Amino acid sequence: MKLATFAVPSPAGPVRRIGALAEGWLVDLQAAYAAYLARTDPGCEAERLAALLIPDDMVAFLGHGQLGWQAAAQALEEGLRIEEAFGRRTRYQLGEVRLLAPVPRPRVIRDFLTFEGHMRNASRALGRGGEIPPAWYEVPAYYKGDPDTVVGPDADVVMPRYTQQFDFELELGMVIGRRGKDIPVEEAHRYIAGFTIFNDFSARDQQMREAPIGMGPSKGKDFDTGNAIGPYLVTPDELDVTNLRMVARVNGEVWSEGSSRGMHFSFAQLIAHVSQSETIYPGELWGSGTVTNGCGLELGRYLQPGDVVELEVEGIGILRNRVVRAVEG
Amino acid sequence: MKLATFAVPSPAGPVRRIGALAEGWLVDLQAAYAAYLARTDPGCEAERLAALLIPDDMVAFLGHGQLGWQAAAQALEEGLRIEEAFGRRTRYQLGEVRLLAPVPRPRVIRDFLTFEGHMRNASRALGRGGEIPPAWYEVPAYYKGDPDTVVGPDADVVMPRYTQQFDFELELGMVIGRRGKDIPVEEAHRYIAGFTIFNDFSARDQQMREAPIGMGPSKGKDFDTGNAIGPYLVTPDELDVTNLRMVARVNGEVWSEGSSRGMHFSFAQLIAHVSQSETIYPGELWGSGTVTNGCGLELGRYLQPGDVVELEVEGIGILRNRVVRAVEG
Repeated sequence: MKLATFAVPSPAGPVRRIGALAEGWLVDLQAAYAAYLARTDPGCEAERLAALLIPDDMVAFLGHGQLGWQAAAQALEEGLRIEEAFGRRTRYQLGEVRLLAPVPRPRVIRDFLTFEGHMRNASRALGRGGEIPPAWYEVPAYYKGDPDTVVGPDADVVMPRYTQQFDFELELGMVIGRRGKDIPVEEAHRYIAGFTIFNDFSARDQQMREAPIGMGPSKGKDFDTGNAIGPYLVTPDELDVTNLRMVARVNGEVWSEGSSRGMHFSFAQLIAHVSQSETIYPGELWGSGTVTNGCGLELGRYLQPGDVVELEVEGIGILRNRVVRAVEG
Repeated sequence: MKLATFAVPSPAGPVRRIGALAEGWLVDLQAAYAAYLARTDPGCEAERLAALLIPDDMVAFLGHGQLGWQAAAQALEEGLRIEEAFGRRTRYQLGEVRLLAPVPRPRVIRDFLTFEGHMRNASRALGRGGEIPPAWYEVPAYYKGDPDTVVGPDADVVMPRYTQQFDFELELGMVIGRRGKDIPVEEAHRYIAGFTIFNDFSARDQQMREAPIGMGPSKGKDFDTGNAIGPYLVTPDELDVTNLRMVARVNGEVWSEGSSRGMHFSFAQLIAHVSQSETIYPGELWGSGTVTNGCGLELGRYLQPGDVVELEVEGIGILRNRVVRAVEG
């Protein structure tokens, strides 16, 4: 399933919904589920039940587990059959609504560094001669991002005032779908809700200023609108993430072309590692780390206000964002 | 005001409430505010209004701003006058309830490194000869913690299976009370809701394994129960945090004695720094970083299962936690 979070314009302000894309339609899963319930169990409180099981927040929805997924599947089928129920539309064409980040406020963001080529290129760009610390091969380290800085497709991304080296990062994003702890690697795939595209915007000069202190990136990665995800959250049954074509374009020009192949640690290994002595929760967003050649640091060029960055990942879609200058306050 | 989050035992399970400590009583602010409303505006929906304005979650409460603080002040006064209203107790003695983390699930955790002596000692302990990177003097770097790992006073802290060097960190915790962005340093004090004690438990061997990768601490700091805070959230009007006595005891023995004096960056400076191009939100927890000599790494000794760690900070209280071994699953 290709899940989305979207906003329907209304005179009372935008209404947020969870949807699924199929046959060119974006089905409003809550509205369609209410229709399904009313048809299959006449007289039940269909609208109320639908709002409970398929709420407007993706993190809450993912927490509903099998019950939620089952409802979503029934809703999707229903939404393709009928157009309206209870005076509400059950589906839209993409141009009629605005896609938001599929998980507008992830519960936690962890971002890894699993591509050896990126490690090597970044080390070279930072004057470390392409050397990779031996620990990198042993431990999948990550930093944690600020969940309040997430934006979605077509959102403007505001370049922080303090950077002159503004960069994108082409990454695969994975969203956790089940709570768990001490998860064996062979069970780990069951904890994945789906995948999305993740652009971890970065202020490289600031990141380099902070690096020697040993806390990882702070303001180098933390600023409003600095984490773009989308356009869809694609369930694992529809995607083989071990070999997806990944492309970054800036103003239409291809800057990077690569593949998701060759993660030094698989997502299953990351889940097994992180969940040691620690509970992971539905709605966490984890980044693969930048794919090899997937950022300006590696390419020796940076973003400017006005630039439009498109990240495309096979089977997920295109995540497009425009870089803008901060409005003087 | 000395705010707490606490649980009242009941046959239907523990009931969570926000309280304030005064005159030896822990006042249930919601119950007491309902009593205040009923007395001053008879006929209004006192219980419902009280639940709205003083909810059970500290993050939500802090988001209510001046309206919330005003209600809390009126409630505290009322709770000291009367014992019961609407069949609910308005106050408790400390032994009758269980204190939880004052902010059970902070919105975001940022932890800094502001004490020069700690930097120097840690560098020495890690074989770097006591050298401090020049960047440390210029940039208040921080890493971000996992908000789902927070526990409160008297909670057991589970030592992760993967560590042989389990450590505490004696820190001052600060909680953000207002939303803001690009906050000038001279305005920054207005964004502080209060202070608490913060024990940032750490797996030093794991942290050292991760350090060379440059992402900051990952599993070195991320594990269930790894961030203890409490016992109270003390508002800034009651506390001068520039010179508080801070003590760490393990099994009653004093391991560290220090003071909050000499933070290289003040909390106001941290707020001004972080809020550059980034919105900060009520309910964020920020750590000062370990006070000089305030952890086992600096002292060459580590914690063992069964150890009881007490962190005492003048004007806030004592945060006591017992270290336990993970139960074999």
